[in-house]
Amino acid sequence: MKVGYFQFKPEYCNPEKNISIIEKNLSGIDIDLIVLPELANSGYLFSRRDDLFRSSENISGGIFINALKRISSKNKFHIVSGICERSENKFYNTSVLICPEGKVITYRKLHLFDTEKKWFEAGNMPISAIEINGKKFGKVRIGMMICFDWIFPETMRTLALKGAQIICHPSNLVMPYCQRAMTTRALENHVFTITANRTGMETAGGKTLTFTGQSVIVSPKGKYLQKASKNRKECAIVKINPKEALDKKINPVNDLFKDRRKKFYFNE
Amino acid sequence: MKVGYFQFKPEYCNPEKNISIIEKNLSGIDIDLIVLPELANSGYLFSRRDDLFRSSENISGGIFINALKRISSKNKFHIVSGICERSENKFYNTSVLICPEGKVITYRKLHLFDTEKKWFEAGNMPISAIEINGKKFGKVRIGMMICFDWIFPETMRTLALKGAQIICHPSNLVMPYCQRAMTTRALENHVFTITANRTGMETAGGKTLTFTGQSVIVSPKGKYLQKASKNRKECAIVKINPKEALDKKINPVNDLFKDRRKKFYFNE
Repeated sequence: MKVGYFQFKPEYCNPEKNISIIEKNLSGIDIDLIVLPELANSGYLFSRRDDLFRSSENISGGIFINALKRISSKNKFHIVSGICERSENKFYNTSVLICPEGKVITYRKLHLFDTEKKWFEAGNMPISAIEINGKKFGKVRIGMMICFDWIFPETMRTLALKGAQIICHPSNLVMPYCQRAMTTRALENHVFTITANRTGMETAGGKTLTFTGQSVIVSPKGKYLQKASKNRKECAIVKINPKEALDKKINPVNDLFKDRRKKFYFNE
Repeated sequence: MKVGYFQFKPEYCNPEKNISIIEKNLSGIDIDLIVLPELANSGYLFSRRDDLFRSSENISGGIFINALKRISSKNKFHIVSGICERSENKFYNTSVLICPEGKVITYRKLHLFDTEKKWFEAGNMPISAIEINGKKFGKVRIGMMICFDWIFPETMRTLALKGAQIICHPSNLVMPYCQRAMTTRALENHVFTITANRTGMETAGGKTLTFTGQSVIVSPKGKYLQKASKNRKECAIVKINPKEALDKKINPVNDLFKDRRKKFYFNE
């Protein structure tokens, strides 16, 4: 199975331009699953609610979703992308999985970071593993999480316990911790991870954010399979065997899931 | 508060020798809490049950525990040490916290690694945070976990949720993953961590293990405060403010514990 990320700089409050960047760069690539950054339609650093209205859309059919469906269907690959979602005049920091046959699955970010709390509602849907099915790769279960979700080990743990083999992780990271931590996250859950981060800077209200790029793909053994630059637009593709993530054994007697001592763990 | 580790090579099946190494190296040091490696009385790679009998002891009073109590009381510091424990002819891979006033608190390793499953019973006691109290540092809560426990994020999470500020982590690591991962563990829980690993090699039944040293002390921001060599005997002491681990805020609006979305997490 061929998986990858497309790291780029989404233009602030300009979905049309972002569609055009994505369409231009992804058309014709030979891949089965590609991950795009968080809020790939809208950009990140909102300064007013009007900008959210302008760049957000309903999952049931806005211009960005429709473009992703068109690209997915035409090129026969799955897309995971961050999207600024509007639903009944509320906004969500959302990730969508788009299948070539047109199916769209949604995850809303559970853990909002910093000023996101001002603009977005916190996620309100279960953490789920989604089965996709492709002629070239068979049945594979995908998990989605978004950026800051990474720091809560329970997020990826829940995805992995529910059977996710590949964790798709649209991000707008401004610090370098996550890209390093993903080796631990992949290793402890024995899954593949694809963190698609964005590049560039955004300024609003006297505040400037520099996004850290360095998108990473990590194997279930915690090794980097791919790592992008800090500031360039990059599309990476790696070949993986998702079945490796089904077996949680790390030696003949240790299994990372069967060895869990659930009754001793605490969640309060 | 001054905390540290003593990294050394425990002699296989020779508690008397190990007491002498510890006593010689720790006498007179200016510290409040020192962490020793896993199975510091016995060594690691057992080849026969007789060797476990020979080097293990009851927590209520064997030569190793008594020596640690003497060292702790004389030098007025707390000791956390791995110990090969015998209880009703069963063996446990245990960690003890020894207080200068003579109190001993026990934790038995929950997640046994590889051939440990052949010799040891799995831990059967709750994961707890233990309050200690010193004239120089006031009240501080300590957590204990042992070596392979690290790969299960729930172990340190449980300790931190129960209030542990400093995680003491006696280890006999043979791979390099943990020392890197401790930056993530410390950061995600906003705690101090002290991993005391051992050095040297052990051979038994045609199998040789090389322990990876590189004991580490990590801050709640995920920074190394101290890192030892791969193969030398080393005692490190760093000054920390354990109160830093009480505050789980990483910016004015994000708190690593209050932001947890418990009802979405899964433990099956």
